[in-house]
Amino acid sequence: MITVALPKGALLKDAVRRFAAAGLDFSAITDPDNRLLMVPSACGSARALLVRNGDVPVYVAYGQAQLGVVGYDVLREQQRPVAQLLDLGFGGCRMAVAVRESSPYRRAADLPPHCRVASKFTRCAAEYFDALDLPVDLIHLTGSVELGPLTGVSEAIVDLVATGRTLRDNGLIAIEDLFHSTARLVGHPLALRLDDGRLQELVQAMAGVTA
Amino acid sequence: MITVALPKGALLKDAVRRFAAAGLDFSAITDPDNRLLMVPSACGSARALLVRNGDVPVYVAYGQAQLGVVGYDVLREQQRPVAQLLDLGFGGCRMAVAVRESSPYRRAADLPPHCRVASKFTRCAAEYFDALDLPVDLIHLTGSVELGPLTGVSEAIVDLVATGRTLRDNGLIAIEDLFHSTARLVGHPLALRLDDGRLQELVQAMAGVTA
Repeated sequence: MITVALPKGALLKDAVRRFAAAGLDFSAITDPDNRLLMVPSACGSARALLVRNGDVPVYVAYGQAQLGVVGYDVLREQQRPVAQLLDLGFGGCRMAVAVRESSPYRRAADLPPHCRVASKFTRCAAEYFDALDLPVDLIHLTGSVELGPLTGVSEAIVDLVATGRTLRDNGLIAIEDLFHSTARLVGHPLALRLDDGRLQELVQAMAGVTA
Repeated sequence: MITVALPKGALLKDAVRRFAAAGLDFSAITDPDNRLLMVPSACGSARALLVRNGDVPVYVAYGQAQLGVVGYDVLREQQRPVAQLLDLGFGGCRMAVAVRESSPYRRAADLPPHCRVASKFTRCAAEYFDALDLPVDLIHLTGSVELGPLTGVSEAIVDLVATGRTLRDNGLIAIEDLFHSTARLVGHPLALRLDDGRLQELVQAMAGVTA
């Protein structure tokens, strides 16, 4: 049986819709009354695991799910051994450096050396500031990163920006983009190699409805 | 002005109630319509930061909050340089090893060497299994850890157990406790040392209403 890891939150509805178009109906998972974390497809030939965004690459890397849907931001942060199969196109956002609007900084390179940068994505942030050759003190936060500059815990943040509303509401502005992120279809490399054809068929169907 | 970091989620209501009894009214923060992450006290002499459980020690360690309320489980996992001031008594739960009820394991030491253990608290788990001299392969998950044994990604989990309902609902049983956890009042060590008396007064008032 094919097991697919789907992320709770913003990407879920689009992911379920895309699988439905490709022939696997997991709509029971988006039912508001659903409390199950493992949901069979309507046809019974597959099942979905409903997990946190950040746990999708774990289940796929360990092979408990042969396929998964997850944001490129998470893949880039975690660097797990999963195969990126398709850019699904939805869930678009950008990873950006943001500062207080009232600050004098307008490019990442303007930030003072050894300043503090708060982020949920400290590996992405570290790579970016390394490439700029700007040493910064990274502070790992798990939520509400926009509080960093407001409380003075950090001069800047590195965070996902979709509409930009959270930044504006908190008097912050994005000054530089690290990369653009969208939802990706990922797979367990060994499962793909040992595939009897059914995985390949599903990936092709997903590619068909994505194009 | 005194800044207090309060945790979103299960501990929030009790924390607000305890501060109210000690003379600081942050009840605006528990208003369902509240969207602010920084809320002044009713008297205006203090403010609360509403942050994720796991971020409370960060704000206190960096001194952006002089005081904070957070579970002992988080303190034990993060090992940050914050002063533990009071055991507030509420939010009681235990950190436990759990396995599938149908498994043959009834003590942590029964687990096979090099088996997989999933947890949000991988540092606590590593220390525990180190002390047992049992090498395990720890898998860090960020949520729904109970899926670990159900999907076969891990033989066991280490997780917080309050009522035990989540374990029962998923056919798991706790077989051993690592430690008991309750909410703690923590402080920034330097802020406490440089205190002009107001922090000490508040901590004593909190101790008074806790006893």
